Amino acid sequence: MPATDRNVLDGLASWRTANEWRVLRELCDFLSLRNVAGEPGHMRENCAWIRSALERRGARTELWRSAAEPEAPPAVFGELNVGAPWTVGVYAHYDGQPADESHWTVGPWTPAVFSDRIDRGGVRLALPKAGETLGDDCRVYARSASDDKTPVVALLAALDALRDAEAEPAVNLLVFIEGEEETTSPHLAEHIAAHRDAMAAADVWLFCDGPADTFGRRHVAFGVRGDVELELTVWGPGHELHSGHWGNFVMNPAMELARLIGSLKDAEGRVLIDGFYDDADAFSETELAAAHEADGLDDALRRQAGVGRSEGGNAEPYFSRMLRPSLNVRGLEAAGVGPRARNVIPDAARASLDIRTVRGSDPHRLVEALRDHARRMGFAVLDRAPTEAERDEHARLLTLVELDSYPAVRTDMNDPAARWALLAVERAAGEKLLRVPTLGSSMPMHAFAEGVGKPVVITPMANADNNQHAADENIRLGHFWAGVRMLATVLTSRGG
Amino acid sequence: MPATDRNVLDGLASWRTANEWRVLRELCDFLSLRNVAGEPGHMRENCAWIRSALERRGARTELWRSAAEPEAPPAVFGELNVGAPWTVGVYAHYDGQPADESHWTVGPWTPAVFSDRIDRGGVRLALPKAGETLGDDCRVYARSASDDKTPVVALLAALDALRDAEAEPAVNLLVFIEGEEETTSPHLAEHIAAHRDAMAAADVWLFCDGPADTFGRRHVAFGVRGDVELELTVWGPGHELHSGHWGNFVMNPAMELARLIGSLKDAEGRVLIDGFYDDADAFSETELAAAHEADGLDDALRRQAGVGRSEGGNAEPYFSRMLRPSLNVRGLEAAGVGPRARNVIPDAARASLDIRTVRGSDPHRLVEALRDHARRMGFAVLDRAPTEAERDEHARLLTLVELDSYPAVRTDMNDPAARWALLAVERAAGEKLLRVPTLGSSMPMHAFAEGVGKPVVITPMANADNNQHAADENIRLGHFWAGVRMLATVLTSRGG
Repeated sequence: MPATDRNVLDGLASWRTANEWRVLRELCDFLSLRNVAGEPGHMRENCAWIRSALERRGARTELWRSAAEPEAPPAVFGELNVGAPWTVGVYAHYDGQPADESHWTVGPWTPAVFSDRIDRGGVRLALPKAGETLGDDCRVYARSASDDKTPVVALLAALDALRDAEAEPAVNLLVFIEGEEETTSPHLAEHIAAHRDAMAAADVWLFCDGPADTFGRRHVAFGVRGDVELELTVWGPGHELHSGHWGNFVMNPAMELARLIGSLKDAEGRVLIDGFYDDADAFSETELAAAHEADGLDDALRRQAGVGRSEGGNAEPYFSRMLRPSLNVRGLEAAGVGPRARNVIPDAARASLDIRTVRGSDPHRLVEALRDHARRMGFAVLDRAPTEAERDEHARLLTLVELDSYPAVRTDMNDPAARWALLAVERAAGEKLLRVPTLGSSMPMHAFAEGVGKPVVITPMANADNNQHAADENIRLGHFWAGVRMLATVLTSRGG
Repeated sequence: MPATDRNVLDGLASWRTANEWRVLRELCDFLSLRNVAGEPGHMRENCAWIRSALERRGARTELWRSAAEPEAPPAVFGELNVGAPWTVGVYAHYDGQPADESHWTVGPWTPAVFSDRIDRGGVRLALPKAGETLGDDCRVYARSASDDKTPVVALLAALDALRDAEAEPAVNLLVFIEGEEETTSPHLAEHIAAHRDAMAAADVWLFCDGPADTFGRRHVAFGVRGDVELELTVWGPGHELHSGHWGNFVMNPAMELARLIGSLKDAEGRVLIDGFYDDADAFSETELAAAHEADGLDDALRRQAGVGRSEGGNAEPYFSRMLRPSLNVRGLEAAGVGPRARNVIPDAARASLDIRTVRGSDPHRLVEALRDHARRMGFAVLDRAPTEAERDEHARLLTLVELDSYPAVRTDMNDPAARWALLAVERAAGEKLLRVPTLGSSMPMHAFAEGVGKPVVITPMANADNNQHAADENIRLGHFWAGVRMLATVLTSRGG
């Protein structure tokens, strides 16, 4: 560990005491800027704020606008080149989810400090005065407090802590803060294509987004699954029919949908679509070992889910399951059940599916494999509603619509730069973190990872109970400062 | 054909001309009495009206009240004993469905005559004056015009026509007019048990209810299927879970429900529940022949249903399919589809099923067979929501609730009394009618048929487009008078 690293990290606790009043003012200042995704008008102030803050720390910044849609919220790019052999990129986003103000205790853009979680009796506190510090359990409540403005301010604080310790960063820093994450990053691929060289200058990118302790302890993740969303409609008679008059004469689309969906998985949860697992990348020894290290989590996860038994039994640990694609029924609908049930043959039956892909899986190929499966069961498969002639012609008629889909991202855990980032982050935490080969959930990181072509490591900061996307979103101060420490450690770790 | 029969039937057209003004006044008078099922207060007037009308024609009447619930709408029993060797019973009901007056052109209890179907340009007419007659396409609009007060007034008219032709009935007449049909006849079994001998005095009962020309031509039916209604819930995690975080770790109840439901039928529509068809009575030669005589109907029925192909192919005719029990998915529900879809593993998935049973099928045995089927698929089967301990213990948990169920009724088409009724009804129509071994639909006739122990033949009168149970319910005059002719023919046909 280089001297600068020790200086900064050893001194960070006292630096917090001396500077928390200032850091929290900067955080609250940023959080007071309205930032609703899809409202480009308010985004200018957020970008100006970020650029000014970075430039005050000596970074050079650029505003990247979409050429295709110049009014769309731009991305802020920043660069702090210290001539080091190693460059680290930090990703975050400044846009936030819409907020229904009536559900907030204070207000989405009126940042407020509380002594603890509001629903656990936290009381509102004033911002600390110079030299005062608040406890780790205090929280700042505001839209984007956790998702995803904290990493920006934590980075600024880390840079300030280095400066005050008279420590030069040991790495060059790139910053990419986008403003369209909550609207599925429609211009991300365009930004990266237009600035590929600038972005690829980083040896590794840290994705600072999401909760850090979802699994009961802090984790670092190397991937996310991809996502395919599908809507299926099996068409029945031209209109709902009386089930007595017509039962045994007219095929029931809800039954045929059940036969189709029910044929997709076996009793152990294995997907039966031909070739479903074929193009999924194999797991490395490192990944499998990491998955098994978290073995002890499974009982807690089952309790959290409210189930006594995992799909296919309890033998396989959670994280190795996430290395396989999954097929999920998001919803079923046909006529009515319970008090709304009537004696009818429904006119149609609908299912919504999602497939979580893993690295290697081609979403479109999986959808085609599902189409083939349906065809083998006797369905004519369309991507739109059928015509009258098609209804007459085909006994079984399925409309299968592929909604948004994007592939998975998974960084090789043995990649040297990824490993460097992991070790820096663990050093900051002072312990071995939960090493997650891939999260089960999905983020549209593919455009980023594929476009930049450098390893991406997900290094989240927020507390899991941050009320992400909901009212009373918050960041816990203990988590905020752990984030500062993580970034300060990264900035002071030599690499290359 | 006896002389009285010819006299009455030959003169019926001129009798209509002379008497339609009076008959329609009597019909409208009866229809003006409010008769909402489940409102006992208004039922007294309906009963008094029926008794008075029957007694004026020389019948002896009784009011049968439920001992268990004396305030429930009573049944009217009537008897006109002419000392004939043969006795015919006529069943109808005087109660009607509730009516939202705002949807009616005139009003549910303000009977109004129109020149044709209102939605085909029919205009309102005054009641005919003495000696005037209206065309067959005219209709009387009112609640219960078709379902099921017409048979009562048609019977009165038939008795009057006999009287005016100075023709003594050739058979003794029993009348049973209940007031609880629309609320599933909760006291029917009690009435019959209390008066079994009186009811069993009939050699055959004519069920005068329902539409006469559902199949495009008039029919006589010898049975109805029974009905079992079931609600199934497959229990998933304790609450909806994120499908990314949990997919492959937590079993999806919508998938398990689809696997269960999808396993119940094969691609040809055959039910795969062990023993499902075992106790269904075999078809007789007569039944099968009758089913095949209606062969030509199938294309029209498919057009009506809006399907190009019947379940399992087009080879088997409609009516022989109705001789088998059917299994139907009334509805499916789990989380949301389409715009309401979210990336979740649902916390539960629900299906509503109905089984149409045939003669011989024991509803409870079929439900038990379904339970066994689910158990063989690994489900623990409950008849209520599970406890927390049960959720922990069982990987697959199904709640199966049997709602109302009742068995089928099917009269032997070769029974002499049933055959006598069929031939009388066909003679009235002047043609061979569609002979339906069993309707596909269900009526709770079992308590009646089983309790009375005499053959039951379903001899409906109403036009199929009568708006049964809906606003602007109506009876077409051509159908009304065909009903009068049918009952007059029955009353003048010697038997025994």
